Amino acid sequence: MITLSSDFGTPYPASMKGVILQHADARLVDVAHDFPRQDVHAAAFWLREVLPHFPPAVHLAVVDPGVGTDRKAVVVRAGEHAIVAPDNGVAMPAARALADAATGAADAGDEGDREDPPDVEVFEIRVEDPASSTFHGRDVFAPAAADVHERGVRVLHEHDRYAPVSDPVELSFPEPSLASDVARGKVLVVDGFGNAVTNLPGNLLADRFGEYVEVNGDRVPVEHTYAAVNPDERLVTVGSHGNVELAANRGRGDEAFGVTSRSQVELTW
Amino acid sequence: MITLSSDFGTPYPASMKGVILQHADARLVDVAHDFPRQDVHAAAFWLREVLPHFPPAVHLAVVDPGVGTDRKAVVVRAGEHAIVAPDNGVAMPAARALADAATGAADAGDEGDREDPPDVEVFEIRVEDPASSTFHGRDVFAPAAADVHERGVRVLHEHDRYAPVSDPVELSFPEPSLASDVARGKVLVVDGFGNAVTNLPGNLLADRFGEYVEVNGDRVPVEHTYAAVNPDERLVTVGSHGNVELAANRGRGDEAFGVTSRSQVELTW
Amino acid sequence: MITLSSDFGTPYPASMKGVILQHADARLVDVAHDFPRQDVHAAAFWLREVLPHFPPAVHLAVVDPGVGTDRKAVVVRAGEHAIVAPDNGVAMPAARALADAATGAADAGDEGDREDPPDVEVFEIRVEDPASSTFHGRDVFAPAAADVHERGVRVLHEHDRYAPVSDPVELSFPEPSLASDVARGKVLVVDGFGNAVTNLPGNLLADRFGEYVEVNGDRVPVEHTYAAVNPDERLVTVGSHGNVELAANRGRGDEAFGVTSRSQVELTW
Repeated sequence: MITLSSDFGTPYPASMKGVILQHADARLVDVAHDFPRQDVHAAAFWLREVLPHFPPAVHLAVVDPGVGTDRKAVVVRAGEHAIVAPDNGVAMPAARALADAATGAADAGDEGDREDPPDVEVFEIRVEDPASSTFHGRDVFAPAAADVHERGVRVLHEHDRYAPVSDPVELSFPEPSLASDVARGKVLVVDGFGNAVTNLPGNLLADRFGEYVEVNGDRVPVEHTYAAVNPDERLVTVGSHGNVELAANRGRGDEAFGVTSRSQVELTW
Repeated sequence: MITLSSDFGTPYPASMKGVILQHADARLVDVAHDFPRQDVHAAAFWLREVLPHFPPAVHLAVVDPGVGTDRKAVVVRAGEHAIVAPDNGVAMPAARALADAATGAADAGDEGDREDPPDVEVFEIRVEDPASSTFHGRDVFAPAAADVHERGVRVLHEHDRYAPVSDPVELSFPEPSLASDVARGKVLVVDGFGNAVTNLPGNLLADRFGEYVEVNGDRVPVEHTYAAVNPDERLVTVGSHGNVELAANRGRGDEAFGVTSRSQVELTW
Repeated sequence: MITLSSDFGTPYPASMKGVILQHADARLVDVAHDFPRQDVHAAAFWLREVLPHFPPAVHLAVVDPGVGTDRKAVVVRAGEHAIVAPDNGVAMPAARALADAATGAADAGDEGDREDPPDVEVFEIRVEDPASSTFHGRDVFAPAAADVHERGVRVLHEHDRYAPVSDPVELSFPEPSLASDVARGKVLVVDGFGNAVTNLPGNLLADRFGEYVEVNGDRVPVEHTYAAVNPDERLVTVGSHGNVELAANRGRGDEAFGVTSRSQVELTW
């Protein structure tokens, strides 16, 4: 199985699929090709959110504002998964989430005879003369994803094409500042519904469902479900990703709260 | 085969696909994930229009403004098809169309030794502790779709997980009012081309091709094809769904006629 | 394998998929369904750009402003590929590119015992009473694509359903005018990033990387990569299709250059 993620829109992802299918008989599954253009942080967030739901797969993930520069192309192995991506950090949060999930699954299994816990390994993809300097998705990443799929993710170190990288580019999401009666954080992404996903941990709201908090100074109810408030009214909830989310029932939370990606969010109670 | 329909945009449907593929080796086919947000009627229309073209399949269909409330999650069996959806009526028109198609096919076959005509059965999906209260598509409906696919749609009554429902939520489209020289109806949906699909039956136009009718007081030609009129000119035709459709050649019918979803349409001749 | 391309948006392509899957057990791959509405030239450009990356396949390609008129429905065979499309030229540039690629591959192979070079053959699809006059994608092209897939692209002449066409509708892209110090051309398409793809051949820029040219009178750097200039600054590059492309780093080239599809582009140096 090979999943595909990018900020390419259409029809460029189809060229990547064609190239992959020349070299691998893999099931192809689109994650998204409308990630915010060249926004490495947003893509990293969504990959971390979505990829752990998949069974072992090769994940092609191309959000690559540095295409054609000397940034590396890498394969990031995490347990039985591999992410093929530019070395700009986009794959790293998802890789760690995949490795954590694999470790958790191993811990829950046979404890007597278990393998080393899965970890994260990064390999540079050695590229010879890509056909273009503007479309590495097609000319570098797609062939590599097909190759990794055909070889298997556990034996990349055996091949000259893949050279271990000790210092991959890292990416971390901004950390919230948490105190006893106030939490300060940021909007990480706004989803297609207009829900504003923050970096504030959902457990901040654990004891407050049915009560009110203040969001950037406005009093807002904390609810389990969007439908708990009237249409167009605002609420704060814990989204499916486990983070605090600013939402409006049947409306757009981002507009209702006047926030966008990277906005400050101050939560008090 | 499992088809997927929702109003989720991206990348949420990919999480549903990952969950399904953890549990079922099924072909996945997207119907649409850009149904008008939380518009159960529009989704019900499109499902009824599209699903009968598929061979037997499990259809995951999530347009769910009541997510997290006590609305049920259901499996609606219709012939050899099953629709996994919230119990808000979204699946019912498609289920009846699928059952009708199956009955029609059975009627056309061997009459001597035939099974009971397919009908529509509804089962509640018993849910234990979904991981989130905001993303039942991933945590409730996707696992159920995989399970129904693996078990087969004919044996759901054998499993505790599926409890018969005698009073599913129904949904009907508004009925037009038809008289000898006037028909009054509504726009059901506007498609991506801007064609406004009404609830007026196409046979109203059967003898009028090449002639004119009045639509909300304006004289408009009745044509078999968009290209029968000049670019940007209006026409009335019978769309692929069999209903009267307000269109403009190479333009948007909704704008040309000044209508939108739920607008009144009065047709006189 | 059957690829699907159209200007249908959603959910109409799903009806085509359902019909195909009733008749063929084929892998389905979407190329794009958001081609500019009824723009046969833009679709022809993208098909020529994308389809040659695929292994042998049947390609369903429906951009069809003349649906329901007497324009033919055709199968265009090119090597081991076939394109099922309306006879409006949309398939022809891609078919020639596919045939060229096949000939090139054959030339590179065994020269002693080789088949005749692949060429392009066009067959009319004989249609009996389509169910609708507005959705031939579902009622004419999808069944034909399934049928061509099941029969194989090499034996269409054996079947009454496919009648050779000697004068298919052709389509050519505008030719640029090239002189020693000036090149005049047009924007063919604008992609989703806002990059304006021209009909000027990329080799015009071969010796000018790192230097400047004038585009419609403005001095602009020629670069291999978008990131070679500062964010929002303009550049001229050779796109992945081999043509001169007007771009802006992390921005929209079409807006930065004030051009759109079909705009004149004058390049001087």
